[in-house]
Amino acid sequence: VVVIGAGFGGIATVRALRDAPLEVTLVDQNNYHLFQPLLYQVGTALLDPSEIAYPVRAIVRRLRNCDFLLGRVISIDLDQHTLHTTAGDLPYDRLVVAAGAVTDSFGKPGVLTHAFGLKNLGDAITLRNHLLTTVEHAAATKDPTERRRLLTVAVAGGGATGVECAGAVCELVGLVLRRDFPHLDLSAFSVLLIEAGSSVLTQFAPSLQRHAIRALERKGIKLRFGAKVDDVTEQGVVLQGGEHIPAATVIWAVGVRGSDAGGLLAPQRARLGRIPVDAGMRIPDHPEVFVIGDLAAATVDGKPLPMLGAVAQQQGAHVAATITAEAGAGSPPPPFRYHDRGTMATIGRNAAVAQIGPIRAWGFPGWVIWLAVHLVLLISFRNRVVVLINWARDYLFYDRPVRLITAPTPHAGDNGSPHGDPAHPD
Amino acid sequence: VVVIGAGFGGIATVRALRDAPLEVTLVDQNNYHLFQPLLYQVGTALLDPSEIAYPVRAIVRRLRNCDFLLGRVISIDLDQHTLHTTAGDLPYDRLVVAAGAVTDSFGKPGVLTHAFGLKNLGDAITLRNHLLTTVEHAAATKDPTERRRLLTVAVAGGGATGVECAGAVCELVGLVLRRDFPHLDLSAFSVLLIEAGSSVLTQFAPSLQRHAIRALERKGIKLRFGAKVDDVTEQGVVLQGGEHIPAATVIWAVGVRGSDAGGLLAPQRARLGRIPVDAGMRIPDHPEVFVIGDLAAATVDGKPLPMLGAVAQQQGAHVAATITAEAGAGSPPPPFRYHDRGTMATIGRNAAVAQIGPIRAWGFPGWVIWLAVHLVLLISFRNRVVVLINWARDYLFYDRPVRLITAPTPHAGDNGSPHGDPAHPD
Repeated sequence: VVVIGAGFGGIATVRALRDAPLEVTLVDQNNYHLFQPLLYQVGTALLDPSEIAYPVRAIVRRLRNCDFLLGRVISIDLDQHTLHTTAGDLPYDRLVVAAGAVTDSFGKPGVLTHAFGLKNLGDAITLRNHLLTTVEHAAATKDPTERRRLLTVAVAGGGATGVECAGAVCELVGLVLRRDFPHLDLSAFSVLLIEAGSSVLTQFAPSLQRHAIRALERKGIKLRFGAKVDDVTEQGVVLQGGEHIPAATVIWAVGVRGSDAGGLLAPQRARLGRIPVDAGMRIPDHPEVFVIGDLAAATVDGKPLPMLGAVAQQQGAHVAATITAEAGAGSPPPPFRYHDRGTMATIGRNAAVAQIGPIRAWGFPGWVIWLAVHLVLLISFRNRVVVLINWARDYLFYDRPVRLITAPTPHAGDNGSPHGDPAHPD
Repeated sequence: VVVIGAGFGGIATVRALRDAPLEVTLVDQNNYHLFQPLLYQVGTALLDPSEIAYPVRAIVRRLRNCDFLLGRVISIDLDQHTLHTTAGDLPYDRLVVAAGAVTDSFGKPGVLTHAFGLKNLGDAITLRNHLLTTVEHAAATKDPTERRRLLTVAVAGGGATGVECAGAVCELVGLVLRRDFPHLDLSAFSVLLIEAGSSVLTQFAPSLQRHAIRALERKGIKLRFGAKVDDVTEQGVVLQGGEHIPAATVIWAVGVRGSDAGGLLAPQRARLGRIPVDAGMRIPDHPEVFVIGDLAAATVDGKPLPMLGAVAQQQGAHVAATITAEAGAGSPPPPFRYHDRGTMATIGRNAAVAQIGPIRAWGFPGWVIWLAVHLVLLISFRNRVVVLINWARDYLFYDRPVRLITAPTPHAGDNGSPHGDPAHPD
């Protein structure tokens, strides 16, 4: 069994296969599992990369029947049942593709060059370095117009990522950097949330959407509804209709699409670049290939499943049970059903919205629920303790301990590749 | 007063000036103060960058009369008393240059491209990514010769950096990665320490040198005395005499020289690229310019002072007292004397050598002294606690929590510059 991707789906799959009489290989282009829901906290210098990333080998070494391969998938030979990777070829009997999603620039070249995505650890380090550097520039410049541009952060997209990012940037500057830069005029600072629709967090109940909007406004975030980004330039963001907003930082949280690994499987993709699968997460004509997680266009009762870690985890466990049964070691699982364990989003200190079954929570209670759930979810004990220390410090002292601007020194060797595949830069 | 460099010397200077009736500006190309003595632990994935780096602004904001400028020095106009930086011009009445030292490649181009220095945070992240990646490659390759090359680490230089690095690499692979890679043949792993002289740690007493050599040998590190590196290639290291040693990782700890900022001050540099200064740390003909720390070729009783953080700190305090006195707020300090507080070096778990006045310690007692001293020295409380947690975990569980291969995503903006100057890439 070969599993592509060490995200929530891939890790759930190999864990659920631990007692099956099978040889499992997990392939990923990074050597760590990333706790994606907190990525925006790395991007805003609240958490350190090592607090939300965990070495894959530290997970895999506890599983007797699983090995790890650091490499990027080049192609998938569905007829020969072979995976070609930058670290060699892997034949498979069963293939589970859990390659996840990537930021979708919607074909706008300015987004690729000038906006900041927030989908992998490199993105988050890049955004952190940029945010901290622009504030330094703002402190050094004598031009008030340029200072205002440097201190304007535009967030495109009013989904969970956009809302959480806007709230966190606001707090980084307003609560922490305000003390680091006592001479800086922070009235020039503004955060703008640009959303094409008429509300934020549309996956939540309308009452929670209204709470979220009020919480954003209380933080001083300017909301622009019904506004679509036409392009992003070095100077800022251009809205449809021609309006230009000067902003040194544009965070692109508009949407994601299935990873390119999907293109290797099926030339015909569904909406958002996802791969159509049947109720057992199999692709057409190849019952030995499963697709799960963000990359899978799975539907339950005709409705597409959301792109959530919980979906990927449940699909991974289901597929692992199917594979185990096919190996003659267990009975086949009942048809897949998605158990919605709830959704939540935080809008900074003391404010979050949570929707868990019939429960609706917001404000401080919502934030406490959010905090508790995320602490429990974090994968390793060490991570949990250190994250708790950092959050506690942030909460008590309004301080971010990790506001460093760091980058590797360039080197002729194979390291420091900025392409997300340290093993084989292209 | 303008101070260049936020290392041990520069920070000691601005702190000692805190009550003087002066306006102080601290300039550095990075936004953090780095605890250099533990840099090798970041390079070997034991500590996280944020554990040995601390935001300069978090230090400076406690000083009423000090501001910080993120920028790189372009030139120094000694006649006009003006510093030109990438973030603007700064006139000065007194200038303190504490720009430190950089890795010296001794004009060997192969060292620049293929060897790994260990002098700044970018170097350490680069080395960490490289070490972890080569072990992944070694696990994936089927060629035993290539595996042996990938698992060979050559350390050039038997000073403190070289010895500490060799010990830490040895432990990373032998104790930690051994568990992550259960199928990897670690008999192919070797660490080689190449030293031109006939001993290691020559600044220590001969008895401690012998203890250090024994500790290195017990860890399985191969010592090559009387061997000089002629060049470094992609394949490994070439010794003088023509011997070629295949090694995927060559760590260059042979020597350092004064930072290039020194070249802006004096075309004529002393040994190791240091700037000649008088007993008051002033340069010839410009009594308003002071040079301290690694960059200063200061002598006491005719002997040059070592390149140590303690020297820089004491010189910074002395220069600050001189400047305060010249500003009419205090009496001039007595002539500078260096108080040697001792030297120590660690050779991994349970082994270190320490020489503090008449005290000589080695083995486990030496290591306990080393640990205690470094915990106290670390600049911030938070750092101290987190570092202690990581060390404790490493010691108890033989585990390195931070073995992630990370790099920023490239971006058209001003961030992610790999040149050590995030503000203004060149």
